[in-house]
Amino acid sequence: MATRVLTPQGEDFPRWYQDVIAKAELADHGPVRGTMVIRPDGYAIWERMQSDLDARIKATGARNAYFPLFIPESYLRREADHVEGFSPELAVVTRAGGKQLEEAVVVRPTSETVIGEYLAKWVQSYRDLPLLLNQWANVVRWELRPRLLLRTSEFLWQEGHTAHASEADARAYTERIHVDVYAAFMRETLAMPVVLGRKSAAERFPGASNTLALEAMMRDGKALQMGTSHELGQNFAKAFGITYLSEQGREELAWTTSWGTSTRMLGGLIMCHGDDRGLRVPPRLAPVQVLVTIVKDGAGVAAAARQIVADLRAEGLRVELDDRVDLPFGRRAVDAELKGFPLRVEVGPRDLVEGVVVLARRIDRSKRSMPLGEARSAARSALIEDQDALYAEALAHRESHTAKVSSIEDAVEAARTGWATIPWSTLGAEGELRLAEAGVTVRCLTMPDGSIPPSEEADGALAVVGRAY
Amino acid sequence: MATRVLTPQGEDFPRWYQDVIAKAELADHGPVRGTMVIRPDGYAIWERMQSDLDARIKATGARNAYFPLFIPESYLRREADHVEGFSPELAVVTRAGGKQLEEAVVVRPTSETVIGEYLAKWVQSYRDLPLLLNQWANVVRWELRPRLLLRTSEFLWQEGHTAHASEADARAYTERIHVDVYAAFMRETLAMPVVLGRKSAAERFPGASNTLALEAMMRDGKALQMGTSHELGQNFAKAFGITYLSEQGREELAWTTSWGTSTRMLGGLIMCHGDDRGLRVPPRLAPVQVLVTIVKDGAGVAAAARQIVADLRAEGLRVELDDRVDLPFGRRAVDAELKGFPLRVEVGPRDLVEGVVVLARRIDRSKRSMPLGEARSAARSALIEDQDALYAEALAHRESHTAKVSSIEDAVEAARTGWATIPWSTLGAEGELRLAEAGVTVRCLTMPDGSIPPSEEADGALAVVGRAY
Repeated sequence: MATRVLTPQGEDFPRWYQDVIAKAELADHGPVRGTMVIRPDGYAIWERMQSDLDARIKATGARNAYFPLFIPESYLRREADHVEGFSPELAVVTRAGGKQLEEAVVVRPTSETVIGEYLAKWVQSYRDLPLLLNQWANVVRWELRPRLLLRTSEFLWQEGHTAHASEADARAYTERIHVDVYAAFMRETLAMPVVLGRKSAAERFPGASNTLALEAMMRDGKALQMGTSHELGQNFAKAFGITYLSEQGREELAWTTSWGTSTRMLGGLIMCHGDDRGLRVPPRLAPVQVLVTIVKDGAGVAAAARQIVADLRAEGLRVELDDRVDLPFGRRAVDAELKGFPLRVEVGPRDLVEGVVVLARRIDRSKRSMPLGEARSAARSALIEDQDALYAEALAHRESHTAKVSSIEDAVEAARTGWATIPWSTLGAEGELRLAEAGVTVRCLTMPDGSIPPSEEADGALAVVGRAY
Repeated sequence: MATRVLTPQGEDFPRWYQDVIAKAELADHGPVRGTMVIRPDGYAIWERMQSDLDARIKATGARNAYFPLFIPESYLRREADHVEGFSPELAVVTRAGGKQLEEAVVVRPTSETVIGEYLAKWVQSYRDLPLLLNQWANVVRWELRPRLLLRTSEFLWQEGHTAHASEADARAYTERIHVDVYAAFMRETLAMPVVLGRKSAAERFPGASNTLALEAMMRDGKALQMGTSHELGQNFAKAFGITYLSEQGREELAWTTSWGTSTRMLGGLIMCHGDDRGLRVPPRLAPVQVLVTIVKDGAGVAAAARQIVADLRAEGLRVELDDRVDLPFGRRAVDAELKGFPLRVEVGPRDLVEGVVVLARRIDRSKRSMPLGEARSAARSALIEDQDALYAEALAHRESHTAKVSSIEDAVEAARTGWATIPWSTLGAEGELRLAEAGVTVRCLTMPDGSIPPSEEADGALAVVGRAY
């Protein structure tokens, strides 16, 4: 038995999570409480998330922009629910350029207010609508109980902000982001099954008239909210004066939306796919899909390994060479498993004499010898298969850890190890309060066929409940 | 004569600059004094700068990471010059999460200090060196006289931070970033000639032992610093304890560097290439290289235009269609010139009957009719030619506005319209002070052959002097 590298998940899941982040060198604590450092191996995954998601967002017609970090405190006060929701988490700059500021400025916790000001300026006529903006930025929400990547005082995210001429258009766009962008990205690229639903009134974004959420199950049975999309109704349009001249020449209030996903997805990825050996990064996402490893030096080994790297790259794969033969092979293998490279191709002198290499798959730790000439197509197929297999495994885990119940007691019991679904008509806002006493929350409301309920009152709507990060 | 869209450069250059930024919808003032909004058309150019530069930085072996926005005030104090240089510009968070903080935190003005802390943690042995990091982030330096994109209280940038085992290695890497990454990017992609040199002691980065700078001439003859690279010696290694065990088993202090470029390059791009009609974006940089414009509706026009778009995209070009025929063609042409699309292909019903389209080049506003079938290759050649032509034009402007002088009086006179070069042995630190009284600064020291002087005392070193942004 090899030395234990990580605390096993079954023994202490939160400690396993911390161990993976530290040992796989994904992130670290910042010097100011609650902040974080995203290390190169973690950041490389985030960059891949960004570029994939960014292309999907742009395909809806949204354009990137950048709005200031600092927001006048007075802006937040303009929307009552919004300021109430965010006030406890604000970081405030009171001194700058060597002087006390006349009006303190807050470090953005989210940008509805400052972007609202500019939407008001830029939207004049119905011809300017819809106006679809997105930004990649850092935001600050002071955290009392920080947890790396999941809940940090500063995090990175994208936040979309749009203005529309009608409620129907705002709703359709919110759902498009939710279903066609976010859920598709999580399913196709992160290999994470997500439940799509609407938040109950108690769980809505401060200032929203409707919040859609994507919930994923972690391997300990808890839920993680992976992204949200909000219909803001005319709340921010009223607060900031976002009006337009309609085709009929009338002045109308616009309808706005906002939607975001963050570095928290990195935490979700770790906890959805990771195992006792470390991270398992889905092939489509992985910054390095194949690690070609020289087992040991020998005649022609380095040249053969380099040729494999070149061949795989010619297939369009992302490949790195591990030629650190001065380090023990075993230690490098443990490290590669920790970091979750989907595939390794091991090239060693003995195998090479026989014209074979070993293909090692991270997903199930299986190893297979094959003729050198087959490595290329075998790698390509394995990457496709393992992307799907990771998704299937996560989905099976969720399904086997979700109970259909019809009482609050059973829901609380199910939430000890996973989720429960319970008819919303049975639970209701009052049942939601009772669940909260047991540390269980309504993650979202969803329809039995997985679609989003048109309203809280929709016939047949189910509450998905569980403990959550 | 068309209506005047912009203040002409010759009449009032600063106003021309403001006009272009507003009319081409590149940026806007933020609500907190000195901050800015980067609008989609400006941000699209920044994104192109980022992706090009990011690839060049990664090619040197550096990896991206992310460090916290908030830095304990005490960190800055550890390096005496550094804190003295940045203190007047700091924004300070004193309140967070509804409470006064015990230790105030500063919003990063640059990240040498916080990254220094982690370099100290991650660097153990000579095997860990060089450690090459980069981050894309926002930074805050409170500005008393803000100017959009050039001098703003918050700006976006990349900052590289590296640790090396020897001074020679740190120096070689700094020069590599300076010459092979920054200068090459500016020349090849931004079409901007830059003078490479070292800063005089008076102009060095706070905490650096040597600062390399890239200086570009704007169309009003003033200089803009486009990027800097710093050898930090062992100053930050001492302050943060960045030490390593050498191959010989001795504990040694590392040598660190830092280097950065920012959204200020956008301002430089505008002022280097823009003319009285607006922006001129170099083809390699342009988010949209060719705007295919439907002049007026007519039989087959839309189909022909779409075919041209498809053909040009098939060549790998970045192409957009302007089919807003409900807006006057003249107004759209003025707008396209403002935004600086390198090429337009105009497709109209009358021309189409004759099987021709018009190719309009932004660089010189020339127009040429050509058979439809030739548009593709003509566009491709024009983009290559105009990239080079913009560079040549900027270089010729700089050369015709740079005087060789040998007295301080002549240098001040030359700086009224451009730059002067003067032997550093003639000027010296004392002459530098006299120039400063006339609002003229030493931009950098350079060798007559354009190379970087090995030291301030290098024989034959020239000072490039001028007024600067």
